[in-house]
Amino acid sequence: LKTYLECIPCFLRQALDVAKKVTNNEDTQREVLNSVSSIIPTLSLDLRPPEIAQTVYRIIARITGNEDPYQEAKQQANRLTLTLYPYFKKLVANAKDPLLAASKLAIAGNVIDLATDSHYGDIKSIAEQALDSPLGLDDYEEFRESIGYSSRLLYLGDNTGEIVFDRILIEEIRRIRDLEIYFAVRDKPIINDATLFDAIYIGMNNVAEVISNGSDAPATILSQCSSQMLKLYHSADTVIAKGQGNYESLSDEAKNIFFLLRVKCPVVERLLKTKMGEAILKKQVV
Amino acid sequence: LKTYLECIPCFLRQALDVAKKVTNNEDTQREVLNSVSSIIPTLSLDLRPPEIAQTVYRIIARITGNEDPYQEAKQQANRLTLTLYPYFKKLVANAKDPLLAASKLAIAGNVIDLATDSHYGDIKSIAEQALDSPLGLDDYEEFRESIGYSSRLLYLGDNTGEIVFDRILIEEIRRIRDLEIYFAVRDKPIINDATLFDAIYIGMNNVAEVISNGSDAPATILSQCSSQMLKLYHSADTVIAKGQGNYESLSDEAKNIFFLLRVKCPVVERLLKTKMGEAILKKQVV
Repeated sequence: LKTYLECIPCFLRQALDVAKKVTNNEDTQREVLNSVSSIIPTLSLDLRPPEIAQTVYRIIARITGNEDPYQEAKQQANRLTLTLYPYFKKLVANAKDPLLAASKLAIAGNVIDLATDSHYGDIKSIAEQALDSPLGLDDYEEFRESIGYSSRLLYLGDNTGEIVFDRILIEEIRRIRDLEIYFAVRDKPIINDATLFDAIYIGMNNVAEVISNGSDAPATILSQCSSQMLKLYHSADTVIAKGQGNYESLSDEAKNIFFLLRVKCPVVERLLKTKMGEAILKKQVV
Repeated sequence: LKTYLECIPCFLRQALDVAKKVTNNEDTQREVLNSVSSIIPTLSLDLRPPEIAQTVYRIIARITGNEDPYQEAKQQANRLTLTLYPYFKKLVANAKDPLLAASKLAIAGNVIDLATDSHYGDIKSIAEQALDSPLGLDDYEEFRESIGYSSRLLYLGDNTGEIVFDRILIEEIRRIRDLEIYFAVRDKPIINDATLFDAIYIGMNNVAEVISNGSDAPATILSQCSSQMLKLYHSADTVIAKGQGNYESLSDEAKNIFFLLRVKCPVVERLLKTKMGEAILKKQVV
């Protein structure tokens, strides 16, 4: 997915949101806005949106001196979602189709995205509601089938907090089939994306092999990934890609990928022919 | 009202919206974004937001060669709202308090704002709903009282289409008191704001003396207004200022002004301590 012109004002808004999060100093906030504005004329729209986001967040880190502005918010999301783990485990276990319930839950968790919405609301009621709602795009049958024949699965994580629900989905996948599962996270803090620290904090290492993808983009930019990550990507029978960032970076790749995400912006809304806020479980078609 | 940092990404979004409206050429759209981005570092936040909007729209006009991108949309709004005129005249006449009903209607008409929302929805049902809803900020008693003792009233118009509802309010004011009423419009096309052409098109000249304010800002920037306009402003007993632009430009003026508007952005929402979409009838306090 290339970058659209509409993404550009959105990057500027995100930059200001983060700057405000990091500092109350209006001069510093203004400096962030000015610096991001000044690179706009040089940006190539052939880049994928998360690649530009990566550049924007690096500018913010340089100006504010803060490499991890969402550190506290991330920990809070992990802790909060962990307290919900037993409750949702039970809901999934009692569901008519536990794998479908866990999939919907994992998609609902994708609402915890501080780049698009810093007030994502009550995650518990959002998740409960998601369990009772149909999917916006529904390739669940193909998803279930793909798990049924896979021996290696690569799960591309997205945000902190959300990864607790990813864990529940991985546990359900394990009940269906005994297969190798790798859970990939970002190499360094970016926005509120999960890193190794977060994955281990919520116990993902008990149910999957947790690896860094080698890149600090808020996405899976293959050209930036480590060779270990690429080997896993190419050898996996099924890839689960969570969130818009992973979708934006892999939407053109010829690979058996299932995209699980919430639609959070008008560009993705238009490309997927769906609606803002919809829960998407979409098989890659190239 | 000074410009807030949050206004800056919003100007860039507006610039892109207009550029897309004017041309399908992505290179031209990009040029608009780049040019607006490049002036961001030089912008003084001591300017009022509509002053910056004025600069932004001039850049767009220069690059696209189109000085009036909303010409068709404006005419359409005028025509559509004119067809609703008899229906709403009757609703107002049958209301318990016709002046209050006409005020609510005039505020509802302020939803026709192509800078903040190019899809403002069904104006008829929005206006009907507004008649049944309370005001978000309600200085109606002071407003009625002020009309009761005024001999000269200056009404600062805002958008095309909306001006039909302004006409209904002016007609109700005339039923309460026989006074001089001046209806001021922008001097040249800017966004979808009303000009002399529009005011005369919807017959405003039958109920008020229509004048240009002498400026092409989407607001009433006194330092840009003609001497005729300033004379009227200073001599008026009551000023009615429609819309956010007029509020942003006059919120610090010591004058008997009543602001009638819909809240359309988070900055004004915060300053007025109200909520997005609320109908505001607020007496100036300085």
